[in-house]
Amino acid sequence: MSDHSLVDQARPLHLNAFLMSTGHHEASWRLPESDPYANTDVAHFQRLAQTAERGKLDSIFFADSPVLRGDVGRRPAGTLEPTVLLTAIAAVTSRIGLIATASTTYNDPYNLARRFASVDHVSGGRAGWNVVTTAGPEAARNFGLDDQPAHRERYERAAEFLEVAGALWDSWTDDATIADQAEGVWGDATKINPIDHVGRYFRVRGPLNLPRSPQGRPLIVQAGSSEDGKSFAARYAEAVFTAQQTLADAQDFYRDLKRRTAALGRDPELIKILPGIVPVIGSTEAEARALDTELDELIRPEYARDQLAKTLRVAPEELALDAQLPAELPDEDQIEGAKSRYTLIVNLARSERLTVRQLIGRLGGGRGHRTFTGTPEQVADAIIDWFDHGAADGFNVMPPVLPSGLDTFVDQVVPILVRRGRFRSDYEGTTLRDHYGLTRPEVAAADLAVTG
Amino acid sequence: MSDHSLVDQARPLHLNAFLMSTGHHEASWRLPESDPYANTDVAHFQRLAQTAERGKLDSIFFADSPVLRGDVGRRPAGTLEPTVLLTAIAAVTSRIGLIATASTTYNDPYNLARRFASVDHVSGGRAGWNVVTTAGPEAARNFGLDDQPAHRERYERAAEFLEVAGALWDSWTDDATIADQAEGVWGDATKINPIDHVGRYFRVRGPLNLPRSPQGRPLIVQAGSSEDGKSFAARYAEAVFTAQQTLADAQDFYRDLKRRTAALGRDPELIKILPGIVPVIGSTEAEARALDTELDELIRPEYARDQLAKTLRVAPEELALDAQLPAELPDEDQIEGAKSRYTLIVNLARSERLTVRQLIGRLGGGRGHRTFTGTPEQVADAIIDWFDHGAADGFNVMPPVLPSGLDTFVDQVVPILVRRGRFRSDYEGTTLRDHYGLTRPEVAAADLAVTG
Repeated sequence: MSDHSLVDQARPLHLNAFLMSTGHHEASWRLPESDPYANTDVAHFQRLAQTAERGKLDSIFFADSPVLRGDVGRRPAGTLEPTVLLTAIAAVTSRIGLIATASTTYNDPYNLARRFASVDHVSGGRAGWNVVTTAGPEAARNFGLDDQPAHRERYERAAEFLEVAGALWDSWTDDATIADQAEGVWGDATKINPIDHVGRYFRVRGPLNLPRSPQGRPLIVQAGSSEDGKSFAARYAEAVFTAQQTLADAQDFYRDLKRRTAALGRDPELIKILPGIVPVIGSTEAEARALDTELDELIRPEYARDQLAKTLRVAPEELALDAQLPAELPDEDQIEGAKSRYTLIVNLARSERLTVRQLIGRLGGGRGHRTFTGTPEQVADAIIDWFDHGAADGFNVMPPVLPSGLDTFVDQVVPILVRRGRFRSDYEGTTLRDHYGLTRPEVAAADLAVTG
Repeated sequence: MSDHSLVDQARPLHLNAFLMSTGHHEASWRLPESDPYANTDVAHFQRLAQTAERGKLDSIFFADSPVLRGDVGRRPAGTLEPTVLLTAIAAVTSRIGLIATASTTYNDPYNLARRFASVDHVSGGRAGWNVVTTAGPEAARNFGLDDQPAHRERYERAAEFLEVAGALWDSWTDDATIADQAEGVWGDATKINPIDHVGRYFRVRGPLNLPRSPQGRPLIVQAGSSEDGKSFAARYAEAVFTAQQTLADAQDFYRDLKRRTAALGRDPELIKILPGIVPVIGSTEAEARALDTELDELIRPEYARDQLAKTLRVAPEELALDAQLPAELPDEDQIEGAKSRYTLIVNLARSERLTVRQLIGRLGGGRGHRTFTGTPEQVADAIIDWFDHGAADGFNVMPPVLPSGLDTFVDQVVPILVRRGRFRSDYEGTTLRDHYGLTRPEVAAADLAVTG
């Protein structure tokens, strides 16, 4: 393929930058180049977003949970609320998509639907919502519960939440406003209607107190890979973040989710599957490996072992640093938390016969996502390999160190992808839906079940 | 007083700009100069905020309710969620305070405390929260209820909500982070503690998932003037917005609220009372009156009568446009909604023997707030008069038309107040608390009830 070929229009590659304070490697904050207070510094995130936009990436993304996670003694903790953070970023960018995580278990649909519609308005149609059900009893205790609702129940609530939010986003038709100043007629009341939702988890009258937003509905993103998670994604998601360690596993996941999507009567092209990749980049392989080693040596293994023990539901003393995982571990069925992450970690350790110390290194680097260490050419090759072999529609790029890892990716990997005709050299549209090749869901008065 | 005297350090005047789409006059959107889609245009609000900042005003403010209010057929409806809107404004301003309304009845304290702390972080300490309990059954129906909780219960919940939010904002001490990169120690876990709140309305474990914000706690603002509202303000509020039509009423309110505040052991200087003023400004009195008339003639009286009937809990046909209000109206005690507003309207109509049509003109102009029509000099005189006579610590400025009414106020009224030594010619501090002369509530480890 020539250096200046156009991007493959039929199947463009998508790239999302998953941003996290000083980077995805848990020890990144200890590097001299890192700002240990980056987690609350809006200017840090605004610069990162501008870098991602310079690379013409589809979107940036923030994870979230309404609870203080991790050991505050050992690494930066606490995060700005993502819809607030993305709004601050919207003001200093013009094209890049903005995806915020929010919980369906610990929010009300009216408030959250309105907040995402508001972000969509202020960003000119760049809002996306990563829908999570929030695992763990710790978050539950911030909301009047002793423990999390069961896994299945959380997903049932999430499904109903999405139905309500969707109805609210469509509660004003696109042509509901007239704005006739001379006659004093502003809206057409027959095109703005209650939703009168009565379900198992919610009763919501509506309509939304906001005209329909530029995208109509924000992009719906999902990241759970459990059975419930995949069913949910097949029905509702337009982009899916997933952690896959091997090409074969990624291909299985990709095939399975596309099949589930088609089985529900949805076009499988309209769900974009983006495995995570932690690119540890050096100008030579040796330089890349040196960065990898430098980071892993900054991990404090005792702390990481405690975290791992918690995830695996075992006592920390059952995990010897230089031995493999205990033979007996709980079944995935017994896990009410993040099921797919649990299974991924156990499978990774078993299949590669990793010691606890080695497992900690792999997890500390990217929390179960695939770490790829190499030169910019090698990273580009790795991306194209999975993309061309039925494993990915694009990638969730998780730089181990920020800002430097994103700078390197944008300045050195993206140009290779562009030269090879796999990635855009400029944005073609203005909305997040445009970037992902998804149409805007229109709502005209004729679509409404209830008319005035 | 000389033209160049310094501002009175002992008792500075405070000015808040209450922003609302095309202005506070309900017919403002019909003026040829107005953009009828301003209510969802972030650039419109960003420009208004920059104008207010040019005038060195203390703050801008948005009202809010989680429900579609009003008749969409007759005037612009729907509003951007205020914490989102203010964050977008924070990115293009540097000093002006940012006050958002949010409901304690229809939010969770963990989420809302975090959102305001996030806005405080991204704005560099400029966040304020106007605490409302949200009257009316319509909002309740968006949150699974058939009707609003009783007035008293809403205020009890609000008080507990504030206690929880305050504890969450203080759950990290100001010196909780160490960020020692060499040792790999980030936070001092003994200075980040659960709040373990167990109350009538909420159980919240905490701590907040965010380090303490620049102001420690956002400024607490309150705007209800019922008995419950005043008790709440005396205990929690640092600024109070109020609707007062006459100097005598404003003085009574001012004295009463300062006395209640002192009775609770709080310094009454630390609660700033800001009556609303709708300044209709012209370069001559005749020009100002012409603007007033032009606006009132754009009101459609049938629509306004329906709105008034709803507020007064009577049938529209009981209100004849050219007669006074019916002799028999419900007692304030029977009103579960916005009690103080109800009383204000009835008192205004009775005391000035207004016909329904006249009352509609007064309400349409500023929804029960004091309208003052005159030249810039006269507006400045009116402000100083109340300020000097024990009726106000400043004003909640409600331009009838936006942006022009704010431009005029900033360019023509503010300079007079500065020349007369009543208002700042530049900001002295950087935070909203600085502007209102309020100190930052510090939290050191020694203050904590629970230490690790």
